[in-house]
Amino acid sequence: MKKYTEYSKAELPELHKKLLTEFDAHKTKSLTLDMSRGKPNPRQIDSANGLITVLGADDYRSEDGTDCRNYGVLDGLPEARKLMGDIVGAPPEQVIVGGNSSLTLMHDLVARALLKGVYVGPVTGSKKPWGAQGKIKFICPVPGYDRHFAICEFFGIEMVTVPLNADGPDMNAVEELIKDKSVKGIWCVPKYANPEGITYSDEVVKRFAALSPAADDFRIFWDNAYALHHITDTPDSLLNIINECERAGNPHLPYVFCSTSKISFGGAGLSAVAASAENIKFIKSQLAVQTIGSDKLNQLRHVRFYKDIDGIKAQMEKHRTFIAPKFDVVLQKLAPLADAGIARFVKPTGGYFVSFHGLDGTAKRTVSLCKEAGVVLTGAGATYPYGKDPRDENIRIAPTYPSVTELNAAMDVFATAAALAAVEILLK
Amino acid sequence: MKKYTEYSKAELPELHKKLLTEFDAHKTKSLTLDMSRGKPNPRQIDSANGLITVLGADDYRSEDGTDCRNYGVLDGLPEARKLMGDIVGAPPEQVIVGGNSSLTLMHDLVARALLKGVYVGPVTGSKKPWGAQGKIKFICPVPGYDRHFAICEFFGIEMVTVPLNADGPDMNAVEELIKDKSVKGIWCVPKYANPEGITYSDEVVKRFAALSPAADDFRIFWDNAYALHHITDTPDSLLNIINECERAGNPHLPYVFCSTSKISFGGAGLSAVAASAENIKFIKSQLAVQTIGSDKLNQLRHVRFYKDIDGIKAQMEKHRTFIAPKFDVVLQKLAPLADAGIARFVKPTGGYFVSFHGLDGTAKRTVSLCKEAGVVLTGAGATYPYGKDPRDENIRIAPTYPSVTELNAAMDVFATAAALAAVEILLK
Repeated sequence: MKKYTEYSKAELPELHKKLLTEFDAHKTKSLTLDMSRGKPNPRQIDSANGLITVLGADDYRSEDGTDCRNYGVLDGLPEARKLMGDIVGAPPEQVIVGGNSSLTLMHDLVARALLKGVYVGPVTGSKKPWGAQGKIKFICPVPGYDRHFAICEFFGIEMVTVPLNADGPDMNAVEELIKDKSVKGIWCVPKYANPEGITYSDEVVKRFAALSPAADDFRIFWDNAYALHHITDTPDSLLNIINECERAGNPHLPYVFCSTSKISFGGAGLSAVAASAENIKFIKSQLAVQTIGSDKLNQLRHVRFYKDIDGIKAQMEKHRTFIAPKFDVVLQKLAPLADAGIARFVKPTGGYFVSFHGLDGTAKRTVSLCKEAGVVLTGAGATYPYGKDPRDENIRIAPTYPSVTELNAAMDVFATAAALAAVEILLK
Repeated sequence: MKKYTEYSKAELPELHKKLLTEFDAHKTKSLTLDMSRGKPNPRQIDSANGLITVLGADDYRSEDGTDCRNYGVLDGLPEARKLMGDIVGAPPEQVIVGGNSSLTLMHDLVARALLKGVYVGPVTGSKKPWGAQGKIKFICPVPGYDRHFAICEFFGIEMVTVPLNADGPDMNAVEELIKDKSVKGIWCVPKYANPEGITYSDEVVKRFAALSPAADDFRIFWDNAYALHHITDTPDSLLNIINECERAGNPHLPYVFCSTSKISFGGAGLSAVAASAENIKFIKSQLAVQTIGSDKLNQLRHVRFYKDIDGIKAQMEKHRTFIAPKFDVVLQKLAPLADAGIARFVKPTGGYFVSFHGLDGTAKRTVSLCKEAGVVLTGAGATYPYGKDPRDENIRIAPTYPSVTELNAAMDVFATAAALAAVEILLK
């Protein structure tokens, strides 16, 4: 296939005209499709419906006899902590089970660090709050997750970007940045990264574990949102950051997050944070001011329905049958763009996204063209702090929500829009 | 009955001896009873068990068709906002439904006010954060709720006490204190107050609504936790603070909280905050950074099970049959202490507590004696900021959790312990 960049200035207008005709044809279809968020499809969710009815009217006691209807149990039922801990490879005593949103756990840990500080050792206990140390910064591997960036932006934490490579963040850049005492954290989606789909290599994880930040109140926010979200039968493997940090003598560095939002129900799952025993004890002492405990009946539902990590893995196999074909559609529709030299992307082996990189200066235009034709995408720039993609070239494609039929239609629109945007730039 | 204060110094040792013998007899019973928290009894909770199984496997859509399993709906299902709004008399559009804990809503609103400020009008939007204004203060009517005070203590907000009278807080004191710009809020439990059991009079509510605080970012934290928690058939009535504040031209003053923790399940209910439309819009803009929405399936469960406010009221009638006899036991056992001139208390017409006022300097001793005899009470001082009851005379009695039989035994211990502590003081 002839690359667009090989077209002469004289040939481009014809290509442009052809694509415009194609695009106008799409517009006449009056589509209304939403691919803006990594949201499970209803038919995919159906496979967890048993969760709704798994408890009988008299089934409200946990293994240790706790009445799950009543107040109490700040850190969650032991068996729920085991279930969630097994997702990320953390022992139950190092896990706190939260409500239906791991985003809330992250947000709240940042808020508390700003107001009250984090654990920095048995003597000093809490460090001077982040918020009392002047300007502070977070490292943001890019492209990344917009809701992480939104937390920093909301709280006025300056975001410093580092490139996300095929094996994880550029660790040379990270190691350099943490020499700055005002750098207090880094956002990571270490497995099937949002949106790049890559998994951090063992070497990268080991370098994370060996970090020696100038700030002793620095934390790695390790959002392992897609730990079990494989779309192939050769899943990526990720080193256990908690174990690695312990081995490296930095046990308190990581906060590890996971949830069942994309396992059971997006709006009614469980979230969890895992960390060193000391971190957990410290967090619990702060959490006790905010709540008497999360919803234990929903914890019990999950424990009854999944039983153990194998139950969750079986669920994820079902999801895979829904999701994998959707990724196939996306990749198939994007392939000609890559052939034409106007796109690159990693073929993900898991997660919820395909991260599309077009020609510089085409992302916003592509998203806007798609919208014109009834296909709503994640806003261009959303994968960068402050919504600003400096090269305007990255678009997060979220294929899970639409049906395969809808997705085919949407990706046809996308392919035409991206090609059109590319030609427009080449014509300039 | 002869008042203890009428005993001569010569007669007291005999009384002391008699009480000691009584107390030793209690100790031999080896009781282990917990009356430390306002926790519903399991048999009381049973009356809401239908909530556990009310949803069928295919029953996950709200009135407007929302799939309650999936992500979304930041402020809660419309019908859940209606149900919760009806508890406190707020229209659904001025209500946000939260997770299982109204304490979390309060904590988070304080945390956000500290970090980001509150709504102060269409032009300025958010005020300079509370946390950037130096030392700030909250007014705390006492005795009050320990978890409110814990939030202030945790965040370093200075607490200034005002007396809680039979008709509500001493409003002269409140009106004086709010002339201080550093005073940013007040904690109120306006109905069947924790622990006093009193309800704010219409005049007090109107004076609250007419407050003109020096700080334009002042908020009334109106924790209407016991709105429907009557224990007589002549319930107290409370003016609607939202309406009154609107009428008085101060619509943005109050944040109103409620929950179903003591209606449905202590650990798996719904919480809500109601406020002016502008407050709610502002809070939602901040909330969107923390969560995509609370558990909608649990909202749907509550809507299906209770249907409307009448369903909730019917539930509360059932609870009353469990709770009212327990208050009778407490009041019956305390009556001789009042007769003896060593105790006073309001006979509550609702709520979860009896607030016991003994002789000055006896509260800690009474709690400690009870503990010796196997009866755990809320710590003395817990009803005051920083856990410090200046006169050491107030004890919160929480009668709901034990059975009537247990409660009888526990209150016998309490009565003896309080009498013994009183005589010890009189002997000094």
